Amino acid sequence: MTTTASTAPIRNGIDTAQVYGTLDALKAQPAAARFEFRVRNHWIDGPHSRSTIQGFWGAGAEDDSRTEPFIVDASEPPVLFGHNEAPNPAEYLLHALAGCLTLTIVNVAAARKVELYEVTSTLTGVLDARGAAGIDDSYRNGFERIDVAFSIRGDAGPEKLQEIVERAKARSVVYDMVTNGVPVAVTADVS
Amino acid sequence: MTTTASTAPIRNGIDTAQVYGTLDALKAQPAAARFEFRVRNHWIDGPHSRSTIQGFWGAGAEDDSRTEPFIVDASEPPVLFGHNEAPNPAEYLLHALAGCLTLTIVNVAAARKVELYEVTSTLTGVLDARGAAGIDDSYRNGFERIDVAFSIRGDAGPEKLQEIVERAKARSVVYDMVTNGVPVAVTADVS
Repeated sequence: MTTTASTAPIRNGIDTAQVYGTLDALKAQPAAARFEFRVRNHWIDGPHSRSTIQGFWGAGAEDDSRTEPFIVDASEPPVLFGHNEAPNPAEYLLHALAGCLTLTIVNVAAARKVELYEVTSTLTGVLDARGAAGIDDSYRNGFERIDVAFSIRGDAGPEKLQEIVERAKARSVVYDMVTNGVPVAVTADVS
Repeated sequence: MTTTASTAPIRNGIDTAQVYGTLDALKAQPAAARFEFRVRNHWIDGPHSRSTIQGFWGAGAEDDSRTEPFIVDASEPPVLFGHNEAPNPAEYLLHALAGCLTLTIVNVAAARKVELYEVTSTLTGVLDARGAAGIDDSYRNGFERIDVAFSIRGDAGPEKLQEIVERAKARSVVYDMVTNGVPVAVTADVS
């Protein structure tokens, strides 16, 4: 893979030569496209738990680029029986969606030779707790809907920037999962 | 709301008197059941972005219990064009699912007078990157499936502990969203 500044620069912090090289590698070696991400979690107390995130399988090998694990907690505010030790799980789902749509916008813009100056977003999710509380099954447990409001500044016109947002929606890993759902298999070893 | 130690103790770190009081309040005042959670995110560089999480609406008021915001980053490892500044969005989705299933198990166990000693879990999500890369549309962008393996120790028998896991699946906010999907509306102010 050769980086040629004139044709494949760093754009929006993305090494576009690496992106093109990766796409070629995925086409040549489809087995490299398999990724397996993992999270280990343990309960601490009340609604408070802690995840450890480090290794994953991808690009044909077990990744060893993370010399230290990421430690990420989740809990609840007092009104939901916790002590604000960390954001709650529903907020982390919004964070996952924000992060994925944003990086996909940035990647798509880089590929389309658009320089971005600013990408900010506000995400809101609304739910009626009578669902999760088991009081009224006419309400679902989770968010009824999620609203995502982006503000984007870049060196392309409004139409091209809107196209980039549409392309990001069509390619975002987490947007796909949150909008379409994923089969989840839960097993429990109990004693 | 009165705490009576003999009938409504702190169990698994959950104040069960508060839980019962909250359920009564939700039945008496359904408007209190509306929750709106929010995340603000801004792009930093490449796939790296940062979320700020603080206020939310719930229990009939804007919550002010968090005196400082939570700051949570997301990024990617080098193989996905980042620099390991933070876990990636797909890993955060697994973390959200782990945290929510775990706290729901803990809440359900507390309500059923089961004391838990240990709750650990390992979550794995598998995807083929040819989907998100736009190389082959026969692969979806997100995880094909998620496997969640719990290990649970408590003072109840295996059958009761398995029932608690099943009830948690039926009541978890994030499990509902991840398995069933949520409508997401994306708007962009561009210039």
